[in-house]
Amino acid sequence: MLEYPKKVYLGDEILDQEDARISVFDRGFLFGDGVYEVLVRIDGKFLLGEEHLNRLEDCLRKVDISFDISSIPDRILKLLEASDLLEEDCLIYIQITRGIAPRKHAFPENTEPSFMMYVLPITLPDINNHHVSVVTVPDFRWSRCDIKMTSLLGNVMANTEAAKQGAYEAIFVRDGKITEASHCNVFFVKDNIVYTHPVSEYILDGVTRKVVLSLCQDLGLQLCEEAIDEKDIIYLDEAFLTGTTTQVASIRQINQHMLYENDDIGPITQKIQTAFFQYRKQPEPVYNNL
Amino acid sequence: MLEYPKKVYLGDEILDQEDARISVFDRGFLFGDGVYEVLVRIDGKFLLGEEHLNRLEDCLRKVDISFDISSIPDRILKLLEASDLLEEDCLIYIQITRGIAPRKHAFPENTEPSFMMYVLPITLPDINNHHVSVVTVPDFRWSRCDIKMTSLLGNVMANTEAAKQGAYEAIFVRDGKITEASHCNVFFVKDNIVYTHPVSEYILDGVTRKVVLSLCQDLGLQLCEEAIDEKDIIYLDEAFLTGTTTQVASIRQINQHMLYENDDIGPITQKIQTAFFQYRKQPEPVYNNL
Repeated sequence: MLEYPKKVYLGDEILDQEDARISVFDRGFLFGDGVYEVLVRIDGKFLLGEEHLNRLEDCLRKVDISFDISSIPDRILKLLEASDLLEEDCLIYIQITRGIAPRKHAFPENTEPSFMMYVLPITLPDINNHHVSVVTVPDFRWSRCDIKMTSLLGNVMANTEAAKQGAYEAIFVRDGKITEASHCNVFFVKDNIVYTHPVSEYILDGVTRKVVLSLCQDLGLQLCEEAIDEKDIIYLDEAFLTGTTTQVASIRQINQHMLYENDDIGPITQKIQTAFFQYRKQPEPVYNNL
Repeated sequence: MLEYPKKVYLGDEILDQEDARISVFDRGFLFGDGVYEVLVRIDGKFLLGEEHLNRLEDCLRKVDISFDISSIPDRILKLLEASDLLEEDCLIYIQITRGIAPRKHAFPENTEPSFMMYVLPITLPDINNHHVSVVTVPDFRWSRCDIKMTSLLGNVMANTEAAKQGAYEAIFVRDGKITEASHCNVFFVKDNIVYTHPVSEYILDGVTRKVVLSLCQDLGLQLCEEAIDEKDIIYLDEAFLTGTTTQVASIRQINQHMLYENDDIGPITQKIQTAFFQYRKQPEPVYNNL
């Protein structure tokens, strides 16, 4: 099912995927010393593209990688063209590492960052019929989850554990509280109040998360940016994941706890999914000034 | 000062360094999804080589990468020969990643792990005149520090912070207790008792650490595998780091606290350094059955 892209933008070149190779001394390979971003292009427009590029810039700053992102929009268009994907809905993956240097822990000086990007055709999930199951795992990751970095072994181990249990996602529990999922944010509904973990160093400040928060306000829903205790899972009315490719996915099962007996989606989740679907179709909030 | 090796063992080939390139879809590059090991060869013998390879095997198992390490000793000798380093003291760096696959968090199935190794000439520090300064940093890393993995952004950020402050190493503080350093273990001496953090998921079970513990016993020193509180740093008599390339390094300064006014090395540290130096010269404990 999973496929490689045809083309990869590597440094200043667009290469066939098979030829996209980097030095083993790239610090991305030796140390996971890089950051990344994923965005989608739907109906010819970049969904919240500016927000994604702003976050990329923010993460580069947090890890002290000096890279001018202003060339990225042009590069995306060139790559879409070279990949023959200008007319398709696409996922765009961008990775920037600290660059190539002899191995030594401390950041080397004056190293040129490595830029890597690819695009893949994507079909976003049908937002009104999108429900998944999740499992809880201890949040054993570092405490700078606000940085979207490529040192992701913790996330991939957790996600693999979820997959083994037949679930779509793993949601992390730190000090008894639910933080986020391995590549999504997570929301809960109890007594008509929408809960999600506040922005902190324990979660990624998700672009979709932010939109959903603002949609909740538009919908007049009561919002509480507060973490849910793992032990209160059994008392929840609804739960959902948010993410760039996940969009808004209803959670029907957490571990052994069934939130719904069948394929139902709770009324508040449904409202938010519908609102997000409409939002996604608007020309207004999307990024298109390439 | 830092140099690239001449040759790199990549997969089944020995390549010139410039030609050692891997796919950008290697999970080592995309996710930091790999483990590594560093060992040294001194006077033609591998210092604790078997212990290092056992730990590598242990870490591979912990992250569920299926790789048969039995071919590594032969490969090391071939690489030393190709690198014209059979007669030199050397550092050997080995990295094994989960392999190449289209990007997806969960471990892919049936992916061939990627093997990368290089050797570099090394001059081990003069063990009787080896003292460094360190700084404390919050231990913001994940809680599986027992795995020697390549998702090292936390370690490199901490080490960079130390370098900025003119120190050799950063020692981590978790919940008020000192765990280990960014690429070393750390020991303390107070009232003639030697302290170090017990083996747990918060530290790497260092090969040199283990040897030093056994040398302490041989020397009749009182040992306590217990973490030191950061607030007790000012009451310490001595402190030292252990590691494969660091060997046993006296700590003369922790943050602003000077353990010694000049280039002194405390008596217990000195005893251990001397014992380690003698140990290192013995043929007995080293690995040489290649």
